[in-house]
Amino acid sequence: MKTFLAEIDVMPKKEILDPQGKAVTGSMKNLGLAEIQNVRIGKHISLEIDADSEATASAKVDEACKNLLANLIMESYTFTLTLKS
Amino acid sequence: MKTFLAEIDVMPKKEILDPQGKAVTGSMKNLGLAEIQNVRIGKHISLEIDADSEATASAKVDEACKNLLANLIMESYTFTLTLKS
Repeated sequence: MKTFLAEIDVMPKKEILDPQGKAVTGSMKNLGLAEIQNVRIGKHISLEIDADSEATASAKVDEACKNLLANLIMESYTFTLTLKS
Repeated sequence: MKTFLAEIDVMPKKEILDPQGKAVTGSMKNLGLAEIQNVRIGKHISLEIDADSEATASAKVDEACKNLLANLIMESYTFTLTLKS
C-alpha cells in the first residue's frame, strides 16, 4: 500500500459568472494593479490517499471529486497525483 | 507587452486547524472512501496579467497575493506563471 498526495483544483466553469472573481478584479485596480484581469476564484484541495497503484488512487480521487468536492453543473475539476515520499 | 497566466494556490498553514477540511475528511468515510485522509481546503485563483517580462509579472502577482488574495497570518500561497499563447 502506497500513499499518494492529490492536488485538486475546482474552478467555476467558463460560461458561469464568477462574482467573487469580478469583485477581486475590481479591487486590483484600487490597489494599483490594473494590469491584472480576468480573476477567477475556485477551490484548491489537497488530500492523502492510500492505494495499491496510481490508477486506483486516480479512480478514487475522481470519485471523490464527482460525489463530494465539485458541483459538476457549475464547476470543473483537475487534479495531479504524486507519490508521498 | 505580454500576457501571462498566473495560477495561485492559497492554503491554510499547516499549524492552523482547517475545520472545512476535517468535515470533508469525515464525509469521505460515509461515501466509502475511507482511504482518503488529511483533506485540506484552500483557494485556487487564476488571473491574467500584462507585463513586459516574467520577472515583472511575478513581482506584481506576489504583491497581489500579499495585499489582497492571501491572509499571511493564516494562509500561505504558491503560484506559477505561464505565457498566454
